[in-house]
Amino acid sequence: MRHVLIVGATRTAQIDGISAAGASPGMVAHTPSADAEIVAFGQPVRSPMAPASPTGCPTPAVVTRAVRELLGFDLLTVDTGLITPTAAPTVTAGAEPGHDVREAVAVPTAEGISATARALGEGVPDDDLLIGESIPGGTTTALGVLAALGEPYMVSSSRQDNPIDRKTDVVAAGLDASDIERGDLAGDPLAAIAAMGDPVFAGLTGFVRGRLAAGRSVTLAGGTQMIAVAAALRHLGVDEPLNVTTTSFVADDETADVTAAADALNVELTVIDPRFERANLEALERYVHGEAKEGVGMGGALARAQDAGISQGTVHRRIEQCITRLESADGS
Amino acid sequence: MRHVLIVGATRTAQIDGISAAGASPGMVAHTPSADAEIVAFGQPVRSPMAPASPTGCPTPAVVTRAVRELLGFDLLTVDTGLITPTAAPTVTAGAEPGHDVREAVAVPTAEGISATARALGEGVPDDDLLIGESIPGGTTTALGVLAALGEPYMVSSSRQDNPIDRKTDVVAAGLDASDIERGDLAGDPLAAIAAMGDPVFAGLTGFVRGRLAAGRSVTLAGGTQMIAVAAALRHLGVDEPLNVTTTSFVADDETADVTAAADALNVELTVIDPRFERANLEALERYVHGEAKEGVGMGGALARAQDAGISQGTVHRRIEQCITRLESADGS
Repeated sequence: MRHVLIVGATRTAQIDGISAAGASPGMVAHTPSADAEIVAFGQPVRSPMAPASPTGCPTPAVVTRAVRELLGFDLLTVDTGLITPTAAPTVTAGAEPGHDVREAVAVPTAEGISATARALGEGVPDDDLLIGESIPGGTTTALGVLAALGEPYMVSSSRQDNPIDRKTDVVAAGLDASDIERGDLAGDPLAAIAAMGDPVFAGLTGFVRGRLAAGRSVTLAGGTQMIAVAAALRHLGVDEPLNVTTTSFVADDETADVTAAADALNVELTVIDPRFERANLEALERYVHGEAKEGVGMGGALARAQDAGISQGTVHRRIEQCITRLESADGS
Repeated sequence: MRHVLIVGATRTAQIDGISAAGASPGMVAHTPSADAEIVAFGQPVRSPMAPASPTGCPTPAVVTRAVRELLGFDLLTVDTGLITPTAAPTVTAGAEPGHDVREAVAVPTAEGISATARALGEGVPDDDLLIGESIPGGTTTALGVLAALGEPYMVSSSRQDNPIDRKTDVVAAGLDASDIERGDLAGDPLAAIAAMGDPVFAGLTGFVRGRLAAGRSVTLAGGTQMIAVAAALRHLGVDEPLNVTTTSFVADDETADVTAAADALNVELTVIDPRFERANLEALERYVHGEAKEGVGMGGALARAQDAGISQGTVHRRIEQCITRLESADGS
């Protein structure tokens, strides 16, 4: 098994109230770079600290790292346009962060990113692939792509309270700036990503297309961003089976009905309950209260641990070890 | 355990008669990119084919990959300046291949590569690190650095017959072009690398310095290139213990007395005999006759397999599987 982690950035994350993927607004730019380092090395290397939300909720990268330590799976990180450098080894599919979706063009290089990721997805030989992402602001840009495609689904949030009004306003401003109406780009997801998406979205879509073109399957490990990717693939005419594996935190989010969206898109939805309320870990309490929810392939990684017969108690203990290591690395 | 694989290129490899790291001169540029893919994925992904010598001797990358499949160790590939893109995830420490050593400057960015690699070496948290390399022409540039430092050691070769006269002529032309005499850059190895080395050499030296600065050890997995790196470190005033682990193919090469060089540099030398004559594998016959010898961390990887109690028969069978997979991938 290999985890394909597609990372990048969008200036959309800097809009006030959009992203909780950083302890402070200034830290958000480091989040995908640090997430990749945590999955690769178990701790930040070039990045200044481990990502956490303003309330101290640790990044889902620690969950994926914990499962990686238990299962020993391989990693392929794809950089579609980070703001800060990462010490995690990456394949480069894009050179710059996405623009604020409220500009006319959000991802000028969407086609190039998609083509590079597609070739990579076609070439990677592993039988079992889990594809995840890290991009602060990614649910807002996903909502932007869905709007351009004319799809009605609402996205979830890494915040406890989904700032739906804020996201909807940003997307409306983005459609205006791009001079398009909702649904104008139905059937043309690359144009929708260029106008309203982010670099990671372009990478995810391209990678999965390549994988399917090679006659192989892939698990989309994530929440409503992955549902939006599935929608984009359906608009491309992809009719192969698609699986999205996510956490119960996303599935239980009533602001975004992921089950209905999966049904409508003919996507198989696998939901894993991390049972963090049983972990007796203060650091995971924020998850139980609906923060973070998903990201960095967390739900898919937990599902693979379950498939391998690893108990949730073992996973929880390993998460605790990973968090303790991060705390001592931050303090050193 | 983690394998740090530092890859890059030098135009020196294009000098007639210097490198056997490619089935034809045109393929040499792909070799380090493909080697990294083979260790990462078990087969080429972006690269056109698996590297082999003109006589068909397979790249040592297959040996390291075979051990990786048995031990499941992690990988960190550092790109110091490749000619062709690789699908292996990398950390970038340099942007362009080194020049022909017969030019005035061989590695204009030696300091930047070294500084980036040093920071990485300081930050990577793993306790056990094995550092290897892939750069065609690397023994010639290593000889160039040794000459600039005034060190008398001869380097080995991936060819069955070491083209010592050819290498010595190239190095003499390089010293002339750089307007230096043998030994002029004693005590200044970064200047020696800039004048006569290659980007991988700069990366290796920097990475090991960072590692030692962090109070940790590292195994230099390679042949006379690693001896030359050890010499450069001694010229920097590094007096920590250094270990070079290499194959008996290098240790038995009478054209390059690696044992004497290690003694003189106060380097602990670990020699592993791959026993390929017992493998009964046609593809490995060329090794038994003195081709390839070492590279891509091969000797160090084999030593780690032995330390882990894995029999040589098991390693040989896994190498056979890796070679069979490469042959079917090349044919597909």
